[in-house]
Amino acid sequence: MKKNKRVGYLIHELVTHPGVSYSSETFCTALDIARSSLSEDLAAAREIIEEIGTGTIETLRGTGGGIRYLPSLNEEGFRRLQQELIRRTEDPQRILGGGYLYTSDFMYDSELIRPMALYFAGCFRHADADYVVTVETKGIALASQVAFMLGLPLVIVRREAKYSEGSTVSINYFSGSYDRIQKMSLAKRAVQPGGRAVIIDDFMRGGGSSKGLAEILAEFDVEVIGTGVAIASKEPAKKKITSYIPILWLDAIDEERRIITARPADYLNPSSLL
Amino acid sequence: MKKNKRVGYLIHELVTHPGVSYSSETFCTALDIARSSLSEDLAAAREIIEEIGTGTIETLRGTGGGIRYLPSLNEEGFRRLQQELIRRTEDPQRILGGGYLYTSDFMYDSELIRPMALYFAGCFRHADADYVVTVETKGIALASQVAFMLGLPLVIVRREAKYSEGSTVSINYFSGSYDRIQKMSLAKRAVQPGGRAVIIDDFMRGGGSSKGLAEILAEFDVEVIGTGVAIASKEPAKKKITSYIPILWLDAIDEERRIITARPADYLNPSSLL
Repeated sequence: MKKNKRVGYLIHELVTHPGVSYSSETFCTALDIARSSLSEDLAAAREIIEEIGTGTIETLRGTGGGIRYLPSLNEEGFRRLQQELIRRTEDPQRILGGGYLYTSDFMYDSELIRPMALYFAGCFRHADADYVVTVETKGIALASQVAFMLGLPLVIVRREAKYSEGSTVSINYFSGSYDRIQKMSLAKRAVQPGGRAVIIDDFMRGGGSSKGLAEILAEFDVEVIGTGVAIASKEPAKKKITSYIPILWLDAIDEERRIITARPADYLNPSSLL
Repeated sequence: MKKNKRVGYLIHELVTHPGVSYSSETFCTALDIARSSLSEDLAAAREIIEEIGTGTIETLRGTGGGIRYLPSLNEEGFRRLQQELIRRTEDPQRILGGGYLYTSDFMYDSELIRPMALYFAGCFRHADADYVVTVETKGIALASQVAFMLGLPLVIVRREAKYSEGSTVSINYFSGSYDRIQKMSLAKRAVQPGGRAVIIDDFMRGGGSSKGLAEILAEFDVEVIGTGVAIASKEPAKKKITSYIPILWLDAIDEERRIITARPADYLNPSSLL
Protein backbone atom coordinates (compact mmCIF):
# COMPACT_ATOMS: atom_id res chain seq x y z
CA MET A 1 0.00 0.00 0.00
CA LYS A 2 1.30 3.44 -0.90
CA LYS A 3 1.99 6.02 1.79
CA ASN A 4 -1.06 8.15 0.97
CA LYS A 5 -3.33 5.14 1.32
CA ARG A 6 -1.63 4.07 4.55
CA VAL A 7 -2.19 7.48 6.15
CA GLY A 8 -5.81 7.41 4.99
CA TYR A 9 -6.24 3.91 6.40
CA LEU A 10 -4.83 4.95 9.80
CA ILE A 11 -7.05 8.02 9.96
CA HIS A 12 -10.13 5.97 9.09
CA GLU A 13 -9.38 3.26 11.64
CA LEU A 14 -8.48 5.63 14.49
CA VAL A 15 -11.19 8.25 13.92
CA THR A 16 -13.91 5.61 13.72
CA HIS A 17 -12.69 3.96 16.94
CA PRO A 18 -11.91 6.87 19.27
CA GLY A 19 -10.42 6.02 22.65
CA VAL A 20 -9.58 2.48 21.52
CA SER A 21 -5.94 1.48 22.04
CA TYR A 22 -4.12 -0.30 19.21
CA SER A 23 -0.71 -1.97 19.39
CA SER A 24 1.97 -1.05 16.83
CA GLU A 25 1.95 -4.71 15.76
CA THR A 26 -1.70 -4.46 14.71
CA PHE A 27 -0.98 -1.65 12.27
CA CYS A 28 2.44 -2.96 11.11
CA THR A 29 0.76 -6.27 10.22
CA ALA A 30 -2.34 -4.73 8.61
CA LEU A 31 -0.23 -2.38 6.48
CA ASP A 32 2.78 -4.70 6.04
CA ILE A 33 5.28 -2.05 7.08
CA ALA A 34 8.14 -1.66 9.60
CA ARG A 35 7.77 0.28 12.83
CA SER A 36 9.82 3.20 11.48
CA SER A 37 7.39 3.65 8.56
CA LEU A 38 4.44 3.38 10.94
CA SER A 39 5.88 6.18 13.07
CA GLU A 40 6.16 8.42 10.02
CA ASP A 41 2.64 7.58 8.87
CA LEU A 42 1.22 8.22 12.34
CA ALA A 43 3.04 11.56 12.49
CA ALA A 44 1.35 12.57 9.22
CA ALA A 45 -2.06 11.40 10.51
CA ARG A 46 -1.56 13.29 13.78
CA GLU A 47 -0.64 16.48 11.91
CA ILE A 48 -3.83 16.31 9.85
CA ILE A 49 -6.08 15.77 12.87
CA GLU A 50 -4.39 18.50 14.91
CA GLU A 51 -4.67 20.94 11.99
CA ILE A 52 -8.38 20.20 11.65
CA GLY A 53 -8.68 20.72 15.40
CA THR A 54 -10.54 17.56 16.38
CA GLY A 55 -8.01 15.98 18.72
CA THR A 56 -4.73 14.15 18.59
CA ILE A 57 -3.19 10.72 18.18
CA GLU A 58 -1.43 9.59 21.33
CA THR A 59 1.43 7.11 21.13
CA LEU A 60 2.52 5.47 24.37
CA ARG A 61 5.68 3.36 24.35
CA GLY A 62 6.49 0.25 26.36
CA THR A 63 4.21 -2.36 27.91
CA GLY A 64 0.69 -1.14 28.26
CA GLY A 65 1.53 1.34 25.53
CA GLY A 66 -0.53 1.78 22.44
CA ILE A 67 -1.84 4.09 19.79
CA ARG A 68 -5.10 5.94 20.42
CA TYR A 69 -7.12 8.70 18.85
CA LEU A 70 -8.17 11.15 21.56
CA PRO A 71 -10.91 13.45 20.26
CA SER A 72 -11.35 17.04 21.38
CA LEU A 73 -12.52 20.32 19.89
CA ASN A 74 -10.18 23.26 19.45
CA GLU A 75 -11.20 26.75 20.52
CA GLU A 76 -12.06 27.86 16.98
CA GLY A 77 -14.44 24.93 16.52
CA PHE A 78 -15.89 25.53 19.98
CA ARG A 79 -16.65 29.19 19.22
CA ARG A 80 -18.29 28.22 15.93
CA LEU A 81 -20.41 25.62 17.74
CA GLN A 82 -21.47 28.16 20.37
CA GLN A 83 -22.46 30.72 17.74
CA GLU A 84 -24.66 28.17 16.01
CA LEU A 85 -26.18 26.98 19.29
CA ILE A 86 -26.89 30.57 20.39
CA ARG A 87 -28.44 31.42 17.05
CA ARG A 88 -30.76 28.45 17.35
CA THR A 89 -31.48 28.78 21.08
CA GLU A 90 -32.48 32.43 20.74
CA ASP A 91 -35.23 31.66 18.20
CA PRO A 92 -38.37 32.95 20.03
CA GLN A 93 -40.50 30.16 18.56
CA ARG A 94 -38.90 27.87 21.15
CA ILE A 95 -40.70 29.53 24.04
CA LEU A 96 -43.13 27.06 25.60
CA GLY A 97 -44.10 29.12 28.64
CA GLY A 98 -43.26 28.57 32.29
CA GLY A 99 -39.57 29.04 31.57
CA TYR A 100 -39.39 26.08 29.18
CA LEU A 101 -37.79 25.99 25.75
CA TYR A 102 -38.29 23.42 23.01
CA THR A 103 -34.80 22.07 22.23
CA SER A 104 -35.38 18.55 20.91
CA ASP A 105 -34.57 19.59 17.34
CA PHE A 106 -30.98 20.57 18.00
CA MET A 107 -30.39 18.03 20.76
CA TYR A 108 -31.12 15.36 18.11
CA ASP A 109 -29.19 17.03 15.28
CA SER A 110 -26.10 15.02 14.27
CA GLU A 111 -24.27 18.08 12.99
CA LEU A 112 -24.47 19.73 16.42
CA ILE A 113 -24.13 16.59 18.52
CA ARG A 114 -20.79 15.75 16.97
CA PRO A 115 -18.92 18.96 17.96
CA MET A 116 -20.61 18.99 21.38
CA ALA A 117 -19.45 15.42 21.95
CA LEU A 118 -15.93 16.25 20.70
CA TYR A 119 -15.75 19.04 23.25
CA PHE A 120 -16.86 16.93 26.22
CA ALA A 121 -14.63 14.06 25.11
CA GLY A 122 -11.70 16.51 25.21
CA CYS A 123 -12.68 17.73 28.67
CA PHE A 124 -12.85 14.22 30.10
CA ARG A 125 -10.30 12.32 28.03
CA HIS A 126 -7.82 12.03 30.88
CA ALA A 127 -10.45 11.60 33.60
CA ASP A 128 -9.98 7.82 33.56
CA ALA A 129 -13.74 7.20 33.56
CA ASP A 130 -15.44 3.81 33.22
CA TYR A 131 -18.90 4.98 32.15
CA VAL A 132 -20.77 7.83 30.54
CA VAL A 133 -24.08 8.20 32.40
CA THR A 134 -27.25 10.09 31.53
CA VAL A 135 -30.89 10.04 32.57
CA GLU A 136 -33.54 9.48 29.92
CA THR A 137 -34.47 10.96 27.47
CA LYS A 138 -33.28 14.17 25.86
CA GLY A 139 -29.57 13.83 26.66
CA ILE A 140 -29.20 10.27 25.36
CA ALA A 141 -28.19 11.12 21.79
CA LEU A 142 -25.45 13.45 23.07
CA ALA A 143 -24.32 11.13 25.87
CA SER A 144 -24.11 8.16 23.52
CA GLN A 145 -21.89 10.14 21.16
CA VAL A 146 -19.64 11.19 24.09
CA ALA A 147 -19.45 7.51 25.15
CA PHE A 148 -18.45 6.61 21.59
CA MET A 149 -15.77 9.33 21.54
CA LEU A 150 -14.32 8.16 24.86
CA GLY A 151 -14.58 4.46 23.94
CA LEU A 152 -16.73 3.87 27.04
CA PRO A 153 -20.04 2.13 27.68
CA LEU A 154 -23.13 4.29 28.00
CA VAL A 155 -25.35 3.87 31.05
CA ILE A 156 -28.93 5.13 30.94
CA VAL A 157 -30.75 5.79 34.19
CA ARG A 158 -34.50 5.29 33.75
CA ARG A 159 -37.34 7.34 35.18
CA GLU A 160 -39.20 4.18 36.08
CA ALA A 161 -37.97 0.66 36.77
CA LYS A 162 -38.64 -1.52 33.71
CA TYR A 163 -38.99 -5.25 33.70
CA SER A 164 -36.42 -5.57 30.90
CA GLU A 165 -33.79 -4.02 33.18
CA GLY A 166 -33.90 -6.89 35.69
CA SER A 167 -33.38 -5.94 39.36
CA THR A 168 -33.01 -2.23 39.84
CA VAL A 169 -32.20 0.28 42.56
CA SER A 170 -34.45 3.33 42.71
CA ILE A 171 -34.20 6.69 44.46
CA ASN A 172 -36.44 9.68 44.88
CA TYR A 173 -35.05 13.17 44.47
CA PHE A 174 -36.41 16.69 44.35
CA SER A 175 -36.60 18.28 40.93
CA GLY A 176 -36.65 22.06 41.07
CA SER A 177 -37.63 22.28 37.38
CA TYR A 178 -40.77 20.25 37.94
CA ASP A 179 -41.16 21.40 41.56
CA ARG A 180 -41.83 17.87 42.75
CA ILE A 181 -40.32 14.57 43.82
CA GLN A 182 -39.08 12.53 40.86
CA LYS A 183 -37.83 8.98 40.64
CA MET A 184 -34.74 7.44 39.09
CA SER A 185 -33.97 3.81 38.62
CA LEU A 186 -30.82 1.95 37.57
CA ALA A 187 -30.34 -1.71 36.67
CA LYS A 188 -28.16 -3.60 39.13
CA ARG A 189 -26.13 -5.07 36.29
CA ALA A 190 -25.49 -1.72 34.60
CA VAL A 191 -22.39 -0.73 36.62
CA GLN A 192 -19.69 -2.32 38.79
CA PRO A 193 -18.84 -1.05 42.29
CA GLY A 194 -15.74 1.14 42.41
CA GLY A 195 -16.33 2.55 38.94
CA ARG A 196 -15.94 6.18 37.83
CA ALA A 197 -18.60 8.02 35.86
CA VAL A 198 -18.87 11.10 33.67
CA ILE A 199 -22.40 12.55 33.57
CA ILE A 200 -23.69 14.12 30.37
CA ASP A 201 -27.03 15.90 30.07
CA ASP A 202 -28.73 18.29 27.69
CA PHE A 203 -29.87 20.91 30.19
CA MET A 204 -29.28 21.98 33.79
CA ARG A 205 -31.49 24.30 35.75
CA GLY A 206 -31.07 23.75 39.50
CA GLY A 207 -28.85 20.69 39.20
CA GLY A 208 -31.43 18.42 40.84
CA SER A 209 -31.21 15.65 38.30
CA SER A 210 -27.39 15.74 38.27
CA LYS A 211 -27.43 15.47 42.04
CA GLY A 212 -29.95 12.64 41.74
CA LEU A 213 -27.63 10.85 39.32
CA ALA A 214 -24.72 11.23 41.75
CA GLU A 215 -26.92 9.81 44.53
CA ILE A 216 -28.11 6.79 42.60
CA LEU A 217 -24.55 6.09 41.42
CA ALA A 218 -23.35 6.34 45.02
CA GLU A 219 -25.77 3.49 45.85
CA PHE A 220 -23.60 1.41 43.51
CA ASP A 221 -20.34 2.81 44.90
CA VAL A 222 -19.72 4.60 41.60
CA GLU A 223 -18.11 8.02 41.82
CA VAL A 224 -18.99 10.98 39.59
CA ILE A 225 -15.78 12.55 38.36
CA GLY A 226 -17.21 15.13 35.98
CA THR A 227 -20.43 16.55 34.58
CA GLY A 228 -21.01 18.12 31.17
CA VAL A 229 -24.23 19.89 30.18
CA ALA A 230 -25.01 21.40 26.80
CA ILE A 231 -26.99 24.33 28.22
CA ALA A 232 -26.97 25.57 31.82
CA SER A 233 -29.49 28.09 33.05
CA LYS A 234 -27.99 31.11 34.82
CA GLU A 235 -30.79 30.99 37.39
CA PRO A 236 -30.79 29.72 40.06
CA ALA A 237 -27.17 30.79 40.53
CA LYS A 238 -26.84 28.32 43.39
CA LYS A 239 -27.04 24.84 41.86
CA LYS A 240 -27.27 21.56 43.74
CA ILE A 241 -23.89 20.50 42.34
CA THR A 242 -20.79 22.68 42.35
CA SER A 243 -18.73 21.43 39.46
CA TYR A 244 -20.02 21.13 35.88
CA ILE A 245 -18.96 22.12 32.38
CA PRO A 246 -21.53 23.94 30.22
CA ILE A 247 -21.28 24.91 26.55
CA LEU A 248 -23.90 27.69 26.72
CA TRP A 249 -25.41 29.78 29.47
CA LEU A 250 -29.09 30.50 29.20
CA ASP A 251 -29.35 33.94 30.76
CA ALA A 252 -33.01 34.82 30.49
CA ILE A 253 -36.31 34.05 28.82
CA ASP A 254 -38.54 37.11 28.56
CA GLU A 255 -41.86 35.52 27.68
CA GLU A 256 -43.74 38.77 27.27
CA ARG A 257 -41.30 40.35 24.85
CA ARG A 258 -40.40 36.93 23.44
CA ILE A 259 -36.67 37.38 23.87
CA ILE A 260 -34.29 34.57 24.81
CA THR A 261 -30.77 35.48 25.84
CA ALA A 262 -27.94 32.96 25.72
CA ARG A 263 -24.20 33.47 25.92
CA PRO A 264 -21.10 31.34 25.39
CA ALA A 265 -19.44 29.57 28.32
CA ASP A 266 -15.67 29.65 28.78
CA TYR A 267 -13.57 27.32 26.66
CA LEU A 268 -11.74 24.63 28.59
CA ASN A 269 -8.52 23.70 26.87
CA PRO A 270 -8.14 19.92 27.09
CA SER A 271 -4.37 20.15 27.48
CA SER A 272 -4.83 22.38 30.55
CA LEU A 273 -6.98 19.66 32.15
CA LEU A 274 -4.25 17.03 32.34
CA MET B 1 -0.30 19.93 1.43
CA LYS B 2 1.23 16.67 0.24
CA LYS B 3 -0.91 14.01 -1.38
CA ASN B 4 -0.82 11.68 1.63
CA LYS B 5 -2.07 14.45 3.87
CA ARG B 6 -4.75 15.45 1.36
CA VAL B 7 -6.15 11.91 1.21
CA GLY B 8 -6.09 11.74 5.01
CA TYR B 9 -7.87 15.09 5.22
CA LEU B 10 -10.61 13.97 2.80
CA ILE B 11 -11.15 10.70 4.66
CA HIS B 12 -11.39 12.54 7.98
CA GLU B 13 -13.85 15.12 6.68
CA LEU B 14 -16.09 12.67 4.83
CA VAL B 15 -16.10 9.87 7.40
CA THR B 16 -16.93 12.26 10.24
CA HIS B 17 -19.79 13.80 8.21
CA PRO B 18 -21.53 10.82 6.60
CA GLY B 19 -24.38 11.58 4.24
CA VAL B 20 -23.37 15.25 3.99
CA SER B 21 -22.90 16.53 0.45
CA TYR B 22 -19.81 18.65 -0.36
CA SER B 23 -19.15 20.59 -3.53
CA SER B 24 -15.86 20.07 -5.38
CA GLU B 25 -15.14 23.77 -4.80
CA THR B 26 -15.17 23.28 -1.03
CA PHE B 27 -12.42 20.70 -1.19
CA CYS B 28 -10.43 22.38 -4.00
CA THR B 29 -10.34 25.58 -1.92
CA ALA B 30 -9.59 23.88 1.41
CA LEU B 31 -6.74 21.86 -0.12
CA ASP B 32 -5.65 24.45 -2.69
CA ILE B 33 -5.68 21.99 -5.58
CA ALA B 34 -7.21 21.68 -9.07
CA ARG B 35 -10.23 19.50 -9.81
CA SER B 36 -8.10 16.87 -11.54
CA SER B 37 -5.99 16.39 -8.39
CA LEU B 38 -9.14 16.26 -6.26
CA SER B 39 -10.50 13.47 -8.47
CA GLU B 40 -7.32 11.45 -7.96
CA ASP B 41 -7.33 12.06 -4.21
CA LEU B 42 -11.00 11.08 -3.93
CA ALA B 43 -10.32 7.91 -5.92
CA ALA B 44 -7.62 6.96 -3.41
CA ALA B 45 -9.94 7.75 -0.47
CA ARG B 46 -12.73 5.70 -2.04
CA GLU B 47 -10.40 2.73 -2.57
CA ILE B 48 -9.38 2.75 1.10
CA ILE B 49 -12.97 2.90 2.38
CA GLU B 50 -14.17 0.21 -0.01
CA GLU B 51 -11.27 -2.06 0.97
CA ILE B 52 -12.09 -1.63 4.65
CA GLY B 53 -15.70 -2.41 3.78
CA THR B 54 -17.46 0.50 5.46
CA GLY B 55 -19.08 2.14 2.46
CA THR B 56 -18.15 4.25 -0.51
CA ILE B 57 -17.63 7.83 -1.64
CA GLU B 58 -20.21 8.90 -4.17
CA THR B 59 -19.40 11.63 -6.70
CA LEU B 60 -22.30 13.17 -8.59
CA ARG B 61 -21.54 15.53 -11.44
CA GLY B 62 -23.49 18.55 -12.61
CA THR B 63 -25.85 20.86 -10.75
CA GLY B 64 -27.14 19.34 -7.56
CA GLY B 65 -24.08 17.10 -7.71
CA GLY B 66 -21.68 16.67 -4.87
CA ILE B 67 -19.34 14.43 -2.97
CA ARG B 68 -20.74 12.28 -0.17
CA TYR B 69 -19.57 9.46 2.05
CA LEU B 70 -22.25 6.75 2.08
CA PRO B 71 -21.62 4.32 4.93
CA SER B 72 -22.50 0.64 4.78
CA LEU B 73 -21.14 -2.63 6.14
CA ASN B 74 -19.78 -5.32 3.84
CA GLU B 75 -20.79 -8.95 4.28
CA GLU B 76 -17.58 -9.91 6.09
CA GLY B 77 -18.08 -7.17 8.67
CA PHE B 78 -21.75 -8.11 9.00
CA ARG B 79 -20.94 -11.76 9.70
CA ARG B 80 -18.34 -10.74 12.30
CA LEU B 81 -20.92 -8.46 13.95
CA GLN B 82 -23.53 -11.24 14.01
CA GLN B 83 -21.09 -13.71 15.58
CA GLU B 84 -20.28 -11.26 18.35
CA LEU B 85 -23.97 -10.41 18.91
CA ILE B 86 -24.91 -14.10 19.02
CA ARG B 87 -22.10 -14.88 21.45
CA ARG B 88 -23.32 -12.14 23.75
CA THR B 89 -27.05 -12.76 23.30
CA GLU B 90 -26.71 -16.46 24.13
CA ASP B 91 -25.16 -15.78 27.57
CA PRO B 92 -27.70 -17.46 29.93
CA GLN B 93 -27.16 -14.77 32.56
CA ARG B 94 -29.36 -12.51 30.43
CA ILE B 95 -32.49 -14.49 31.19
CA LEU B 96 -34.90 -12.35 33.20
CA GLY B 97 -37.91 -14.68 33.09
CA GLY B 98 -41.19 -14.29 31.24
CA GLY B 99 -39.38 -14.41 27.89
CA TYR B 100 -37.31 -11.29 28.63
CA LEU B 101 -33.57 -10.84 28.12
CA TYR B 102 -31.35 -8.15 29.57
CA THR B 103 -29.70 -6.45 26.57
CA SER B 104 -28.91 -2.92 27.74
CA ASP B 105 -25.19 -3.67 27.96
CA PHE B 106 -24.71 -4.36 24.29
CA MET B 107 -27.38 -1.97 23.06
CA TYR B 108 -25.29 0.79 24.71
CA ASP B 109 -21.89 -0.53 23.60
CA SER B 110 -20.20 1.81 21.08
CA GLU B 111 -18.18 -0.99 19.53
CA LEU B 112 -21.36 -2.87 18.59
CA ILE B 113 -23.55 0.15 17.84
CA ARG B 114 -21.15 1.36 15.17
CA PRO B 115 -21.27 -1.71 12.89
CA MET B 116 -25.03 -2.11 13.48
CA ALA B 117 -25.53 1.50 12.45
CA LEU B 118 -23.25 1.06 9.40
CA TYR B 119 -25.39 -1.86 8.30
CA PHE B 120 -28.73 -0.05 8.62
CA ALA B 121 -27.26 3.07 7.00
CA GLY B 122 -26.29 0.88 4.02
CA CYS B 123 -29.77 -0.64 3.85
CA PHE B 124 -31.49 2.75 3.83
CA ARG B 125 -28.95 4.99 2.13
CA HIS B 126 -30.96 5.31 -1.07
CA ALA B 127 -34.35 5.34 0.68
CA ASP B 128 -34.49 9.12 0.46
CA ALA B 129 -35.64 9.43 4.08
CA ASP B 130 -36.10 12.67 6.02
CA TYR B 131 -36.00 11.28 9.57
CA VAL B 132 -34.76 8.38 11.63
CA VAL B 133 -37.45 7.61 14.21
CA THR B 134 -37.39 5.51 17.37
CA VAL B 135 -39.45 5.19 20.54
CA GLU B 136 -37.72 5.70 23.88
CA THR B 137 -35.56 4.27 25.40
CA LYS B 138 -33.41 1.30 24.53
CA GLY B 139 -33.10 1.89 20.79
CA ILE B 140 -32.08 5.57 21.05
CA ALA B 141 -28.30 5.03 21.09
CA LEU B 142 -28.52 2.87 17.95
CA ALA B 143 -31.06 5.09 16.19
CA SER B 144 -29.02 8.21 16.89
CA GLN B 145 -25.95 6.58 15.34
CA VAL B 146 -28.00 5.56 12.26
CA ALA B 147 -29.27 9.15 12.00
CA PHE B 148 -25.67 10.37 12.16
CA MET B 149 -24.60 7.90 9.44
CA LEU B 150 -27.44 8.99 7.15
CA GLY B 151 -26.95 12.68 7.92
CA LEU B 152 -30.58 12.89 9.07
CA PRO B 153 -32.32 14.29 12.14
CA LEU B 154 -33.33 11.86 14.86
CA VAL B 155 -36.92 11.89 16.10
CA ILE B 156 -37.74 10.34 19.46
CA VAL B 157 -41.31 9.32 20.20
CA ARG B 158 -42.02 9.51 23.93
CA ARG B 159 -44.04 7.15 26.06
CA GLU B 160 -45.70 10.07 27.78
CA ALA B 161 -46.31 13.64 26.65
CA LYS B 162 -43.76 15.94 28.32
CA TYR B 163 -44.18 19.62 28.91
CA SER B 164 -40.81 20.34 27.30
CA GLU B 165 -42.07 18.87 24.01
CA GLY B 166 -44.74 21.55 23.56
CA SER B 167 -48.01 20.44 21.92
CA THR B 168 -48.04 16.74 21.18
CA VAL B 169 -50.18 14.14 19.44
CA SER B 170 -50.72 10.90 21.36
CA ILE B 171 -52.02 7.48 20.38
CA ASN B 172 -52.81 4.28 22.21
CA TYR B 173 -51.71 0.95 20.77
CA PHE B 174 -51.70 -2.65 21.89
CA SER B 175 -48.33 -4.03 22.99
CA GLY B 176 -48.18 -7.81 22.76
CA SER B 177 -44.92 -7.85 24.77
CA TYR B 178 -46.54 -6.15 27.72
CA ASP B 179 -50.01 -7.55 26.95
CA ARG B 180 -51.63 -4.18 27.45
CA ILE B 181 -52.50 -0.84 25.91
CA GLN B 182 -49.50 1.49 25.73
CA LYS B 183 -49.24 5.13 24.84
CA MET B 184 -47.00 7.03 22.44
CA SER B 185 -46.62 10.75 22.08
CA LEU B 186 -44.88 12.92 19.51
CA ALA B 187 -44.19 16.66 19.55
CA LYS B 188 -46.08 18.56 16.88
CA ARG B 189 -42.91 20.39 15.86
CA ALA B 190 -40.82 17.21 15.53
CA VAL B 191 -41.75 16.39 11.93
CA GLN B 192 -43.17 18.05 8.81
CA PRO B 193 -46.16 16.65 6.88
CA GLY B 194 -45.18 14.71 3.77
CA GLY B 195 -41.92 13.46 5.26
CA ARG B 196 -40.45 9.97 4.97
CA ALA B 197 -39.17 8.03 7.97
CA VAL B 198 -36.91 5.09 8.69
CA ILE B 199 -37.72 3.36 11.99
CA ILE B 200 -34.90 1.89 14.07
CA ASP B 201 -35.44 -0.15 17.23
CA ASP B 202 -33.47 -2.52 19.42
CA PHE B 203 -35.95 -5.38 19.58
CA MET B 204 -39.10 -6.61 17.88
CA ARG B 205 -41.43 -9.24 19.27
CA GLY B 206 -44.91 -8.90 17.79
CA GLY B 207 -44.23 -5.64 15.96
CA GLY B 208 -46.76 -3.72 18.08
CA SER B 209 -44.51 -0.77 18.79
CA SER B 210 -43.35 -0.53 15.15
CA LYS B 211 -46.99 -0.53 14.09
CA GLY B 212 -47.69 2.10 16.77
CA LEU B 213 -44.86 4.24 15.38
CA ALA B 214 -46.30 3.96 11.86
CA GLU B 215 -49.70 5.00 13.23
CA ILE B 216 -48.48 8.02 15.13
CA LEU B 217 -46.37 9.11 12.14
CA ALA B 218 -49.44 8.73 9.90
CA GLU B 219 -51.17 11.30 12.14
CA PHE B 220 -48.49 13.70 10.91
CA ASP B 221 -48.75 12.52 7.30
CA VAL B 222 -45.27 10.98 7.57
CA GLU B 223 -44.72 7.70 5.73
CA VAL B 224 -42.60 4.84 7.06
CA ILE B 225 -40.35 3.63 4.25
CA GLY B 226 -38.29 1.08 6.15
CA THR B 227 -37.76 -0.51 9.55
CA GLY B 228 -34.55 -1.92 11.01
CA VAL B 229 -34.39 -3.88 14.27
CA ALA B 230 -31.26 -5.23 15.92
CA ILE B 231 -32.95 -8.40 17.20
CA ALA B 232 -36.27 -9.87 16.04
CA SER B 233 -37.95 -12.66 17.92
CA LYS B 234 -38.94 -15.67 15.78
CA GLU B 235 -42.22 -15.93 17.70
CA PRO B 236 -44.86 -14.81 16.99
CA ALA B 237 -44.18 -15.61 13.32
CA LYS B 238 -47.02 -13.31 12.32
CA LYS B 239 -45.92 -9.77 13.17
CA LYS B 240 -48.04 -6.66 13.05
CA ILE B 241 -45.82 -5.23 10.33
CA THR B 242 -44.74 -7.13 7.23
CA SER B 243 -41.50 -5.53 6.17
CA TYR B 244 -38.50 -5.11 8.48
CA ILE B 245 -34.77 -5.78 8.45
CA PRO B 246 -33.31 -7.67 11.41
CA ILE B 247 -29.65 -8.38 12.22
CA LEU B 248 -30.32 -11.39 14.48
CA TRP B 249 -33.21 -13.76 14.97
CA LEU B 250 -33.95 -14.77 18.53
CA ASP B 251 -35.22 -18.32 18.08
CA ALA B 252 -35.96 -19.50 21.60
CA ILE B 253 -35.38 -18.92 25.29
CA ASP B 254 -35.52 -22.14 27.29
CA GLU B 255 -35.78 -20.78 30.81
CA GLU B 256 -35.67 -24.17 32.52
CA ARG B 257 -32.49 -25.37 30.83
CA ARG B 258 -31.21 -21.80 30.61
CA ILE B 259 -30.47 -21.95 26.89
CA ILE B 260 -30.92 -19.00 24.53
CA THR B 261 -30.80 -19.67 20.79
CA ALA B 262 -30.09 -16.90 18.30
CA ARG B 263 -29.16 -17.10 14.63
CA PRO B 264 -27.93 -14.68 11.96
CA ALA B 265 -30.40 -12.97 9.64
CA ASP B 266 -29.73 -12.76 5.89
CA TYR B 267 -27.29 -10.12 4.66
CA LEU B 268 -28.82 -7.41 2.53
CA ASN B 269 -26.33 -6.09 0.04
CA PRO B 270 -26.76 -2.30 -0.15
CA SER B 271 -26.01 -2.23 -3.88
CA SER B 272 -28.87 -4.68 -4.48
CA LEU B 273 -31.24 -2.26 -2.75
CA LEU B 274 -30.84 0.58 -5.22
